[in-house]
Amino acid sequence: MAFQDLKRFILGEALSNSQAEHERLPKWKALPVFSSDAMSSVAYATEEILIILAALSAAAAVWSLPIALTIAALLLIVSLSYRQTISLYPHGGGAYTVARENLGETPGLLAGAALMIDYILTVAVSISAGVAAITSALPECAPYAVAIALGLILIMTLLNLRGASESGLIFSIPTYFFIASILILLIVGFYRTWLGDLPPKAGIVHEAYPKIGLFLVLRAFASGCAALTGIEAISNGVPAFREPSAKNAKTTLMIMIAVLGTFFMGVTALAHQHLILPSAAGGGHGGGETVLSQLARTVFGDSMAYYAIQTATALILVMAANTAFADFPRLASILGKDRYMPRQLSNIGDRLVFSNGITVLGIAAALLIYLFDADTHALIPLYSVGVFLSFTLSQSGMVAHHLRHREPHWVKGLLLNLAGAIATALVLCVVAVTKFTEGAYIIILVIPAMLLLFRGVKRHYESVGRQLALPKTWTLDHVTPSIVVVPISGFHTGVLKALEYARGISKNIHVCVVDVDERATANVRQQWRQNLGEESASPLKLVVLDAPYRSVIDPVVDYLNELERGNPGQTLTVVIPEFVTKHWWHATLHNQTAFFLKTRLRYIERRVVVSVSYHLRE
Amino acid sequence: MAFQDLKRFILGEALSNSQAEHERLPKWKALPVFSSDAMSSVAYATEEILIILAALSAAAAVWSLPIALTIAALLLIVSLSYRQTISLYPHGGGAYTVARENLGETPGLLAGAALMIDYILTVAVSISAGVAAITSALPECAPYAVAIALGLILIMTLLNLRGASESGLIFSIPTYFFIASILILLIVGFYRTWLGDLPPKAGIVHEAYPKIGLFLVLRAFASGCAALTGIEAISNGVPAFREPSAKNAKTTLMIMIAVLGTFFMGVTALAHQHLILPSAAGGGHGGGETVLSQLARTVFGDSMAYYAIQTATALILVMAANTAFADFPRLASILGKDRYMPRQLSNIGDRLVFSNGITVLGIAAALLIYLFDADTHALIPLYSVGVFLSFTLSQSGMVAHHLRHREPHWVKGLLLNLAGAIATALVLCVVAVTKFTEGAYIIILVIPAMLLLFRGVKRHYESVGRQLALPKTWTLDHVTPSIVVVPISGFHTGVLKALEYARGISKNIHVCVVDVDERATANVRQQWRQNLGEESASPLKLVVLDAPYRSVIDPVVDYLNELERGNPGQTLTVVIPEFVTKHWWHATLHNQTAFFLKTRLRYIERRVVVSVSYHLRE
Repeated sequence: MAFQDLKRFILGEALSNSQAEHERLPKWKALPVFSSDAMSSVAYATEEILIILAALSAAAAVWSLPIALTIAALLLIVSLSYRQTISLYPHGGGAYTVARENLGETPGLLAGAALMIDYILTVAVSISAGVAAITSALPECAPYAVAIALGLILIMTLLNLRGASESGLIFSIPTYFFIASILILLIVGFYRTWLGDLPPKAGIVHEAYPKIGLFLVLRAFASGCAALTGIEAISNGVPAFREPSAKNAKTTLMIMIAVLGTFFMGVTALAHQHLILPSAAGGGHGGGETVLSQLARTVFGDSMAYYAIQTATALILVMAANTAFADFPRLASILGKDRYMPRQLSNIGDRLVFSNGITVLGIAAALLIYLFDADTHALIPLYSVGVFLSFTLSQSGMVAHHLRHREPHWVKGLLLNLAGAIATALVLCVVAVTKFTEGAYIIILVIPAMLLLFRGVKRHYESVGRQLALPKTWTLDHVTPSIVVVPISGFHTGVLKALEYARGISKNIHVCVVDVDERATANVRQQWRQNLGEESASPLKLVVLDAPYRSVIDPVVDYLNELERGNPGQTLTVVIPEFVTKHWWHATLHNQTAFFLKTRLRYIERRVVVSVSYHLRE
Repeated sequence: MAFQDLKRFILGEALSNSQAEHERLPKWKALPVFSSDAMSSVAYATEEILIILAALSAAAAVWSLPIALTIAALLLIVSLSYRQTISLYPHGGGAYTVARENLGETPGLLAGAALMIDYILTVAVSISAGVAAITSALPECAPYAVAIALGLILIMTLLNLRGASESGLIFSIPTYFFIASILILLIVGFYRTWLGDLPPKAGIVHEAYPKIGLFLVLRAFASGCAALTGIEAISNGVPAFREPSAKNAKTTLMIMIAVLGTFFMGVTALAHQHLILPSAAGGGHGGGETVLSQLARTVFGDSMAYYAIQTATALILVMAANTAFADFPRLASILGKDRYMPRQLSNIGDRLVFSNGITVLGIAAALLIYLFDADTHALIPLYSVGVFLSFTLSQSGMVAHHLRHREPHWVKGLLLNLAGAIATALVLCVVAVTKFTEGAYIIILVIPAMLLLFRGVKRHYESVGRQLALPKTWTLDHVTPSIVVVPISGFHTGVLKALEYARGISKNIHVCVVDVDERATANVRQQWRQNLGEESASPLKLVVLDAPYRSVIDPVVDYLNELERGNPGQTLTVVIPEFVTKHWWHATLHNQTAFFLKTRLRYIERRVVVSVSYHLRE
């Protein structure tokens, strides 16, 4: 089949079960797969803070420094809290698992809903910010931002359908390229600032912290918390690490936090040093230049180095979406196994990945990008609510775990997780309040809706289970031969095949002719007499049905109803002779009576419809 | 079913065969149904002549008078010729029938192709001209011309699907309204001209016939011949007339020709009297005012009477399309019965009309309108070639008929038809040459293509007939019981139903489990032992199939292939247990394995696929 060939070409050969173990990742491959999301927030977190502050006054931008410092501290608290999760949940401790096990079903589902939304937004935000990096460097691409973003999502989806290991390899290079680029940017930036050889920006004077309102500071802080997105990915994905997986995951987590914290602080400080403020369409597409792009241009001018930084940023942002492509399908599969989501999401596809989950994620993210016009700044408020809700539930679950199980060193763990839980809960409140009207309300409405959906799905599966359940012992005693009905319009080779088949499965066969054309009906009677002999001597009975409205379908349906009334409890089998044309377009030349009859009779209980097909050779 | 209810609401109740006789039309209803096309050409034929002449000079417009006179003479010749056809072909003498019977298959098919194209163009041209009448009166509608035209076609299609008699009634009023309107326009126009109280148009002086080239005169003549379109409709539709149908049809034809000729001459003369010339976008949409609209405005000013004329014109043009809706399906049905077109076109629908033909016509005309932007002037050149080709073939066929049969008065008939044949053949040549580059070439290419299509369809039906033909005597001896394969994933109520059904139709049943999940497979084995006893003692055999690539479908297909190789010539029946959810959206929560398996196995000979459905109650 051509479709199968195309699928194989794009996705690679099917992998057999025995190839599964090979797919586990060493640390150097796991770092890019699971941390590109977290690290890439360097590209937009600083900008999100500055957008809020600069709306008041350029001087207010100085507040970005203490805000960034607070966020870095938060980052450390949350990551220490997540290390505990990795220790205690070596098989993958996503917020869903942790909350469900320790806090109960509803908090678990709440976390599951929050996480699913997050992963979708991770893709949407990262891709939008990646496209912003491209349009900052190449403003002429700005009108095509949405199209570029959608194209990138398509490519990501296909790469992920190919399987985890290959994508690990593909994604390592950009992540390491980004780490090197930002490192060089910061080193060269601070060095040249220290030397004093960077051109000073005219206009605004460095001033002591101007007085600004608390709400504004909180809003800026809430925006900057986008820097924390993605740090939970490693703790969800522990089983994907090579053994010893918990230890490897912890090491990878701490490397990631160190790099992320340093980069975020460095970019914020350097941006402030050079008085960089978000430009008009800041962060979005449509002509605005991102803060990181302005910074890179300030440090390197319009050189190759500038373009290298933009390329690295765009690449890691695009690749960041991959974090979600690794984790969303895993979560969906767990929810599917627990019967809260369609169970097809738990099917492992023929490349050993959860193909259905990957596809769903790709489509959902594409839809968001399309609806929000690939505007990072518009998507961030939606993003943060879900992120901090799942953080809070996950840490609270850990607190409950320590209190209940009291394993060795539980007090240390309890304190770390408690700190994490309180910190993230506070941030959640700040985000929900300060970002409510900017889009957070959407998520606050969607999460309960998803909760209802999860429960509805579960109820359906339970009901189906009950309905299909067999008693402890059962037998196959209730066997009655089927009554067979064969609707025909005349005798030809295909009809003969169908009659032969009917003879093979039953001794009670009603051959029906619908009398739409007197001549044809007479012809059937005559051929019957000539070739099938007296009716009474045969298991075949000829039935001529009236057709006052020229429909062939209705009289057959009526006759079946009548037969059913006369033989309650018995199964009727309708054998439809059908000839299959050699080319599909030949079919347009024939009445599709068989098709219409099948459609009418489909899915009626105790009525089985069989097509006996006869193939035309030319 | 909701769809059925909607259909009944829009199209009316199904009519039974016994209601067929009621659908025949009296003369006063037949006139509007069959003549609106011909009469409505008054709305554009004069304009088409003037467009060509005025392109040279305003003074050249005086040539429109002799050209119109010639066309009126042609009209008379052709209609006298068609009277002969009505006499000799009381069952409907379309060009196809007449040419095929008297000239042979190829000329017949040529006429058939030409006619089908004509009918489609009748709809496209009439609707476009009707919309032009609307946009002349209401220039603000001009930007929506195409949308209005497509909406009108949709309405026409639905009205015709309701059935002939009801549409006869609906269409009478506009036709009679148009006849009255134009009559008043001409009377008032000539009377006021005679009185001399119409404001004289400044600028151009009436001049004696200026010298213009022959080719230009011929082009203008060819354009004006659009006035003849539609006059064949009555002779094709004789059987729709009330008895005595031939006599009634002839009377109706002569009334129509008298009205049409008078109107066409009158409008042309009056337009010339008042120096009316086509405006910029003449005849098309987009701001141009039609000649008839200018004339009505000249005679009546911007009064109610002017708007009445425009309304009547728009209505009759829209209704003119109905001529084609009456005849196209009839012709398609004849071609379908002769096996040159898909035979579904010959099916009479449940409102006693040829529903498929009506639908095809609606779609084709809508497509033309869309492609040609609802521009009458662009469509006319395509229109005329087909019209005069079918005229010529029809009249020539009549000539051949007279020569062969020599019925009473055959010499008179021969002369009339010979005059018709020669006249229309000459016009055909003129149209093909002078309009070639304006679009006539499209039809000259399409007609042979349709000829090939007709023959291809015929060949296919003949080949199918040969392949399905049974020998003179045949028996049902070749009966072998089917081997049944039941793929299952575990035991539940639905599976039990399927196994019971399988037992009812065969004694050789292979129950297949695909081993995708070790636990599930072990469970099946255990339940089997417990409830079905020893395998050897039962007609049911348990087969466990390996699934190295986790696909459920492939192992089943492989097993079927294997069974088939082991049992050549025997039919395999695959019985698929399927449960049907109560709501369709519940189905999204279940693996569609049954569906995919059915799709894979569909239409394979000697493999019969049966779904045994079990209905969930909640």
